[in-house]
Amino acid sequence: MKVGIIGASGYGGLELIRLLHTHPEVEDVVLFTSSEEGTIFSDRYSHLLNIYDRPLQSIELEKLAEFDVVFSSAPAGVASKLLPPLIGKGPRLIDLSGDFRLKDLAVYEQWYKKQAAPASAIAESVYGLTEWNNDAIQEAQLVANPGCYPTAVLLSLLPLLKDGLIDPSHLIIDAKSGISGAGNKPSQMTHFSETNENTAIYKLHQHQHIPEIEQTIAQFTEKTVPITFSTHLVPMTRGILTTSYAPVTEGTTEADLFDCLKETYASHPFVRVVQETDKFGTNQVYGSNYCDIHVKVDPRTNRATIVSVIDNLVKGAAGQAVQNMNVQFKLAETTGLLHIPAFI
Amino acid sequence: MKVGIIGASGYGGLELIRLLHTHPEVEDVVLFTSSEEGTIFSDRYSHLLNIYDRPLQSIELEKLAEFDVVFSSAPAGVASKLLPPLIGKGPRLIDLSGDFRLKDLAVYEQWYKKQAAPASAIAESVYGLTEWNNDAIQEAQLVANPGCYPTAVLLSLLPLLKDGLIDPSHLIIDAKSGISGAGNKPSQMTHFSETNENTAIYKLHQHQHIPEIEQTIAQFTEKTVPITFSTHLVPMTRGILTTSYAPVTEGTTEADLFDCLKETYASHPFVRVVQETDKFGTNQVYGSNYCDIHVKVDPRTNRATIVSVIDNLVKGAAGQAVQNMNVQFKLAETTGLLHIPAFI
Amino acid sequence: MKVGIIGASGYGGLELIRLLHTHPEVEDVVLFTSSEEGTIFSDRYSHLLNIYDRPLQSIELEKLAEFDVVFSSAPAGVASKLLPPLIGKGPRLIDLSGDFRLKDLAVYEQWYKKQAAPASAIAESVYGLTEWNNDAIQEAQLVANPGCYPTAVLLSLLPLLKDGLIDPSHLIIDAKSGISGAGNKPSQMTHFSETNENTAIYKLHQHQHIPEIEQTIAQFTEKTVPITFSTHLVPMTRGILTTSYAPVTEGTTEADLFDCLKETYASHPFVRVVQETDKFGTNQVYGSNYCDIHVKVDPRTNRATIVSVIDNLVKGAAGQAVQNMNVQFKLAETTGLLHIPAFI
Amino acid sequence: MKVGIIGASGYGGLELIRLLHTHPEVEDVVLFTSSEEGTIFSDRYSHLLNIYDRPLQSIELEKLAEFDVVFSSAPAGVASKLLPPLIGKGPRLIDLSGDFRLKDLAVYEQWYKKQAAPASAIAESVYGLTEWNNDAIQEAQLVANPGCYPTAVLLSLLPLLKDGLIDPSHLIIDAKSGISGAGNKPSQMTHFSETNENTAIYKLHQHQHIPEIEQTIAQFTEKTVPITFSTHLVPMTRGILTTSYAPVTEGTTEADLFDCLKETYASHPFVRVVQETDKFGTNQVYGSNYCDIHVKVDPRTNRATIVSVIDNLVKGAAGQAVQNMNVQFKLAETTGLLHIPAFI
Repeated sequence: MKVGIIGASGYGGLELIRLLHTHPEVEDVVLFTSSEEGTIFSDRYSHLLNIYDRPLQSIELEKLAEFDVVFSSAPAGVASKLLPPLIGKGPRLIDLSGDFRLKDLAVYEQWYKKQAAPASAIAESVYGLTEWNNDAIQEAQLVANPGCYPTAVLLSLLPLLKDGLIDPSHLIIDAKSGISGAGNKPSQMTHFSETNENTAIYKLHQHQHIPEIEQTIAQFTEKTVPITFSTHLVPMTRGILTTSYAPVTEGTTEADLFDCLKETYASHPFVRVVQETDKFGTNQVYGSNYCDIHVKVDPRTNRATIVSVIDNLVKGAAGQAVQNMNVQFKLAETTGLLHIPAFI
Repeated sequence: MKVGIIGASGYGGLELIRLLHTHPEVEDVVLFTSSEEGTIFSDRYSHLLNIYDRPLQSIELEKLAEFDVVFSSAPAGVASKLLPPLIGKGPRLIDLSGDFRLKDLAVYEQWYKKQAAPASAIAESVYGLTEWNNDAIQEAQLVANPGCYPTAVLLSLLPLLKDGLIDPSHLIIDAKSGISGAGNKPSQMTHFSETNENTAIYKLHQHQHIPEIEQTIAQFTEKTVPITFSTHLVPMTRGILTTSYAPVTEGTTEADLFDCLKETYASHPFVRVVQETDKFGTNQVYGSNYCDIHVKVDPRTNRATIVSVIDNLVKGAAGQAVQNMNVQFKLAETTGLLHIPAFI
Repeated sequence: MKVGIIGASGYGGLELIRLLHTHPEVEDVVLFTSSEEGTIFSDRYSHLLNIYDRPLQSIELEKLAEFDVVFSSAPAGVASKLLPPLIGKGPRLIDLSGDFRLKDLAVYEQWYKKQAAPASAIAESVYGLTEWNNDAIQEAQLVANPGCYPTAVLLSLLPLLKDGLIDPSHLIIDAKSGISGAGNKPSQMTHFSETNENTAIYKLHQHQHIPEIEQTIAQFTEKTVPITFSTHLVPMTRGILTTSYAPVTEGTTEADLFDCLKETYASHPFVRVVQETDKFGTNQVYGSNYCDIHVKVDPRTNRATIVSVIDNLVKGAAGQAVQNMNVQFKLAETTGLLHIPAFI
Repeated sequence: MKVGIIGASGYGGLELIRLLHTHPEVEDVVLFTSSEEGTIFSDRYSHLLNIYDRPLQSIELEKLAEFDVVFSSAPAGVASKLLPPLIGKGPRLIDLSGDFRLKDLAVYEQWYKKQAAPASAIAESVYGLTEWNNDAIQEAQLVANPGCYPTAVLLSLLPLLKDGLIDPSHLIIDAKSGISGAGNKPSQMTHFSETNENTAIYKLHQHQHIPEIEQTIAQFTEKTVPITFSTHLVPMTRGILTTSYAPVTEGTTEADLFDCLKETYASHPFVRVVQETDKFGTNQVYGSNYCDIHVKVDPRTNRATIVSVIDNLVKGAAGQAVQNMNVQFKLAETTGLLHIPAFI
């Protein structure tokens, strides 16, 4: 397979390069850019010395059309312009931005403060939450790869909501993310001296992943539920931990929740359900495509606390994108993705 | 004033030493130990070279009785034995552990898995949440200094609960702490390589600060409410951020919540209420005795998100203890505590 | 005393504000800016809420002339223009940049790639290495406050070089710094995700502190010696550790080196000399004005390893600047600076 | 190939498991322990859930003899007892500790303060610095895998010393390491709150890697030279950066040094030589088996600064061990090791 990547110098792009390099079915990876044409990529990123010493290519439709797959990891608002002309022209398309995720254009424009992608492209796009949308992804010309937070949240909540084990009317989701989720562009918010030794809440009630989560809950569980969702930055590079709170429904036990999750993911190797544990953290999935889920019911309040962890750059971005590529090309879902987490 | 500290080698003790060193009314600080008698303290902690080069003293009632104040920052289960004989013998007592906080001995034993302090000592003790209990603290022979998490939680929630602005029946509290809260004893859970680049949830539904928060809510608002409270470790040394979620009561607006907090703390310099902000984090109180509070109401759900930040070792431990000492000795509450946070 | 600060929004400026706030002889601090006039400072830096809620003032000669002291912590190339007109006009001047440190204008222009300050201002300026230049600082109208690296290097090496105990012809200095030394301006080099979990060497053989160190060695020891000096960034906010290597001269022992340092600094409370230790690190001076020094001779090679640690923002910048102000105003050198290091 | 690992719960062991899991020629990995027999390994290390859920095996000679390779990553002093009986009994042996590296037993005992391994086993052992000892490793029954610091130091210095381009009589090596090098056993030195925001020097002039470096320089360059070598801990988990200083010999230029390194490693894919760079750091090899080397000559002093970076757990331990296994089994050296560094 020949793979093209648009927006390679973002962190999603760098992680795609890293994962595809050891993918057994990928023969060549070529990098495209809208602004840095000709740059020798290893001059910009020294970790790629002797690995990718070729220049970045300018984005041209004809060149891109020759690839089997084209990933885009450009920032929001870019893929909505670049990818639509490629639909049906040859390559399978996988976009890592939010441009094709929201089906309602007005909702996109409200939360992203940008012009939405063309309605026809959005109609064509398939939401790439692999474990839940496998059949549609197989056929998809354009995959809208899920956001990092939604991946962690949805994998842990969808089974419980679908089976009616938790009450969505009081659903609270508290998310914590490493700083790499903010991308590679320097800013005061990602400046080391102001980020280190600091845990902060940001974009309170304003995060663009809120409508993505709500839309997907509606899609797979037929429940329309406004969620409370907040996001925090913690001083580490990789990792997301989400802690969700909801009352259990009448008669539901902790074992019911555990069993539901366990059964849902019985044939899905990248989702691991953890029963007893004293400590449950992001380092147990670091660098890997796993999503680990843990659930407990507090008998004092009859509320469930559902916790999930992912590596935001892998399962929350590039890893899930490669998983979707595997599905599209009818390879084993795990091809090239069976890395053991780097716990330390 | 002459000050004695029991358990000086713990992090609460070290922070007491740091704060008392520049306190204008403190003339001498003497350190006591139950197990390291004779150790030159600066041999153990090199940052105290030329500052405290004297040996640790053994704990003897008669010696301790000569001090104006005795702080104990020994681990849970120690002060319950050491301090009761000193009550009424001269020094004002301030305990930083949880030993005298819970009024119900059975509750203590259930959550701490240790034997409770004598009932008479517990009856004597006054909960040292300075901004809420000033009058009682002035008279107290024994102050039970609040836990780090409860301080951040209670300062931000008590005004809103008391005024009936939020509905306690769906109160969710999600807390994040730096690692110093786990103390100075090495363990796998505090081992750098397993803590760095890791955000983790621990002691889920089991944390001993749960009954402390519930008891204090009952004490000051007359509301008995079982809370959902969870605790996370994030890879930084100092700082706690708590994010609390509750529905606002009928007719309550964001402005009502802000005004309530603002008015409650109008004459309390260490509690700062922050109105508009994009990012609200622990570094804005680092190293200081401030507790900053921020509140927003999500119009989509009519739920409030209430966020507070403290330095766990200062306002969450030693700083509040010194503030209580100031109150006991009728000094200005801020004496020796007006440090500007070390934002960087 | 009334104090003005130019360039308050840089990290040196923030640290000055922090230290001067609890200085007993400072009555008022006023902040000046060349580009952000009118900004309410606590809107920009939330840790200063209720502490400095006034607007930044524009820089005007007449206003500045009314202060007792004016500190400048503007970037290189700014103070060289702003401060000279103020010399002799009233306020004592203390500049934290490198603009007035190098006596040879051509050397400044070679290493800083900027135009040098006027020769007359440079002639007037006094190098503010407090422990070594006390008399001149007392009289100085304009103090050139030392760089962070030079402070750590010079305090540890000057006594040994002056007494001829180490051989300067093979002097190697390897310095490690926290990221705050790079200032508050975001860049790829200070972007959290590329700085965290990374130790890097930068500006190899090009650092502008090289001529400052060499000039000062010549000034105080009359030895002209080209040094090898390299600088590294380590993933922490504050702190510098310098490791210097030099052969000991014929007949010199480890005890000689220790005694020399000990005697040199016997009456200088901010320099502490550490004899035996297994581990010697920056956290033993964190947040304080101390410089700790440790020395060992390796009998296998007859070379000395001399190690020193400072907090780069305190003894390496704002703390030493306040110490110099104390000297200028004939206060005790330690006034307002006796903070115990925040070891944790 | 069937692989056994002794001491799997150490960080070297965990990293071996991680790398061997995706090695295409490894069919099964079995874990052995001297003290935790029967422990389900994923109960201890949750990142291995669903990956290694089997119990740890007790160490028995007959069982171990059935493997193709046995790695030992037990602490110093353990392999010296466990491995000798297995020599020549079937499996190729690769030890990650220091037990078989030093040829002189007295030197081992002096620096390690432990009893040395049997002389016969040491005579049999081959030093596993892959790029320099390939032929001997191919035949070796027992490989003494190099220490983390020596790997970074030797790869960068051996070519220059061998070709006489730098003068060994003034060789200074300043090394900085992440904390994982200290292993998985909690201690005050690795306690998060005392390690975070701290750069420290430790074991000054006492580090047991000093004789290993000197012995190997003698082995490959025939130069006997006592080095000055110091080690620092920086607050990150993985990575080593070594900065070495030496005068260049008469007539040698920076280009000569660069060319020498470039030629030496022309056919060695894991060693990359970097020419021009502003910043050179450990993150460019993070998680990979690369060793990157950079060299500059300072024309002011005629001294070379030679910098090298590795991931201490990969090229400095488990990665090089797998590379040695590849050599022993005549596989391509890079088999299973071509991971792109995780720059972020």
